[in-house]
Amino acid sequence: MSNKIEFVKREQLKEKPDPKNLGFGQHFTDYMLSYDYDKDKGWHDLKIVPYGPIEISPAAQGIHYGQSVFEGLKAYKHGDDIVLFRPDQNFKRINNSLERINMPKIDEEELLEGLKQLVDVERDWVPEGEGQSLYIRPVVFATEGTLGVHASHNYKLLIILSPSGSYYGGGSLSPTKIYVEDEYVRAVRGGTGFAKTAGNYAASLLAQTQANKEGWDQVLWLDGVERKYVEEVGSMNIFFVINGKLVTPKLDGSILPGITRKSIIELAKKLGYEVEERHVAIDELIELHDKGELEEVFGAGTAAVISPVGKLKYEDREITINNFETGETTQKLYDHYVGIQSGKIEDPNGWRVVVPKY
Amino acid sequence: MSNKIEFVKREQLKEKPDPKNLGFGQHFTDYMLSYDYDKDKGWHDLKIVPYGPIEISPAAQGIHYGQSVFEGLKAYKHGDDIVLFRPDQNFKRINNSLERINMPKIDEEELLEGLKQLVDVERDWVPEGEGQSLYIRPVVFATEGTLGVHASHNYKLLIILSPSGSYYGGGSLSPTKIYVEDEYVRAVRGGTGFAKTAGNYAASLLAQTQANKEGWDQVLWLDGVERKYVEEVGSMNIFFVINGKLVTPKLDGSILPGITRKSIIELAKKLGYEVEERHVAIDELIELHDKGELEEVFGAGTAAVISPVGKLKYEDREITINNFETGETTQKLYDHYVGIQSGKIEDPNGWRVVVPKY
Ligand SMILES: Cc1ncc(COP(=O)(O)O)c(C=O)c1O
Ligand SMILES: Cc1ncc(COP(=O)(O)O)c(C=O)c1O
Repeated sequence: MSNKIEFVKREQLKEKPDPKNLGFGQHFTDYMLSYDYDKDKGWHDLKIVPYGPIEISPAAQGIHYGQSVFEGLKAYKHGDDIVLFRPDQNFKRINNSLERINMPKIDEEELLEGLKQLVDVERDWVPEGEGQSLYIRPVVFATEGTLGVHASHNYKLLIILSPSGSYYGGGSLSPTKIYVEDEYVRAVRGGTGFAKTAGNYAASLLAQTQANKEGWDQVLWLDGVERKYVEEVGSMNIFFVINGKLVTPKLDGSILPGITRKSIIELAKKLGYEVEERHVAIDELIELHDKGELEEVFGAGTAAVISPVGKLKYEDREITINNFETGETTQKLYDHYVGIQSGKIEDPNGWRVVVPKY
Repeated sequence: MSNKIEFVKREQLKEKPDPKNLGFGQHFTDYMLSYDYDKDKGWHDLKIVPYGPIEISPAAQGIHYGQSVFEGLKAYKHGDDIVLFRPDQNFKRINNSLERINMPKIDEEELLEGLKQLVDVERDWVPEGEGQSLYIRPVVFATEGTLGVHASHNYKLLIILSPSGSYYGGGSLSPTKIYVEDEYVRAVRGGTGFAKTAGNYAASLLAQTQANKEGWDQVLWLDGVERKYVEEVGSMNIFFVINGKLVTPKLDGSILPGITRKSIIELAKKLGYEVEERHVAIDELIELHDKGELEEVFGAGTAAVISPVGKLKYEDREITINNFETGETTQKLYDHYVGIQSGKIEDPNGWRVVVPKY
């Protein structure tokens, strides 16, 4: 298991980007993990190879029929150590995603081991500024080059790494403005919403672009059946603080089960909050707001960690949350959560996984 | 407009496949059409190049976020001529698909001209056996290699060509067995169902595989909201003959507007049939069947043209349609339709487009 995997060295290492201008997902490290699947051999040929263009068939089913799933997690620098945050959860989720669109599962342990070896090779790429991290992107896609619509017989798995800047530019949390989408639908029960499939993101782009044009940062999706219950934001799950209680939409098949969501729920309970996972109607939120009981709203996801919501627009109503300021509960959860991620506070749950020096 | 586009010759032409064993989408011709888009230049660099692997970034957004749409149409050999069937409709539909997932539209005329020149080069690849054709697959996908979720700034369009066998092995129509899917959902109003996006097909694979395992050829999708109204089959629209009338689900945002569907409706009206586009509940179909009024069922799509349905399974009911035989109306529409496509009968609507000799 912890044998060293094949390593194909590149001729010349790349120049590292300016740590002040990392952005998100713009720069990639020197190496990537590569793994192939075919029907006869199963998963094979796990190796670390130079990051660079790959060759695919013009008929590759991943492109034509969207058989593609991905994950996103982060590595942090803690002094001399590199630490992954709950990576087991991402490999568990990728298997759920793979299953949903008829792709072969991976061995979670083996992939985690491969990832550790890759990150070990790329230690110097993990940025150390506040809020900075090495973003890790596993992706699996169909490579069979034939046009019949069926589950592909060939797949490629890659893990690519991207040093990324702080979501908040290193400063304090800043509230976002969110548009409640009432025309387009992201996912519906029975569909692929709970899986991290490529197609879910394609389906979300038009609404996102239109909301941006009108000055909104993100969209909040409603359920596809009744167009009534809030689901999640573009790449975050959503939380509400209602009369001191933490409330979040329950996982019902159409919402991505975020790892940040899960962790925040666990953390909040430890901190003494009551947490409710249930259906939350958009009309209920507006009413609660009008009664002064919708105290805080925030999104939770790997990229932003926690992102306070300052404004919500639904149909012809615009409501302002907590004076467009970061609320107390939001800040408290953020501080604890980032404290654990960055190594500043204790990690009683073993969420941090130190990358060995191989 | 009809200037000759750039042509990059390949060193050696491929060997042509055995016309008796073409299958579908297995073999590809010597050349493909290639077109690139970037934000500054727009669509540029239209050319005919050797068919072969393409290089993409491991972070290509088409793979990670499913920004990819495609089309499917056919060319037939009529004596010395090569004929395309309603290609204008496919380029119109690809623009609707592109728009839905926030991709740049193409110039329909220009692409049709490019396609004609490509097919002209590949004349010898169009098979001439009964029911055989050259399947044409345009595909457009995002190539930008960055990980932020947004509409990509770079795209590639390819048109690839595949000589394909007869769906019915040259023989007569044979009825299929169809499973009415009551667990998984393909599309929902507000989503991408009406567009030919890659993700729609990924979403459909698991249900298809499970149905196949239980001996059913295809699944019939129900609407995602009420799970009550029939929508379409895997890659066909669906028609019912009810008391001599032709009935098909109306286009409501979640169904692909098939070009065969549209053509069959036009043709049937000319032949004197009454045609109804409306919601069709699965329970209504079962009831009609029990009363002896569900006379025929067939699917309609480019691949199969018309495919009679002999059995439907919904929950614990299995119903047999027309004694598991091809019905009179189905056969009549098939004969007329294929007659027009193959050049055997008149084409009063100008559906056939002859490829010029450049
Ligand atoms: C649609 C969607 N919802 C929620 C999340 C949050 O998930 P996680 O906390 O695992 O990053 C993400 C981000 O990955 C997402 O893409
Ligand atoms: C989902 C779906 N529905 C219907 C059709 C039929 O469309 P057309 O007649 O244009 O081939 C297709 C095939 O292309 C399809 O993929």
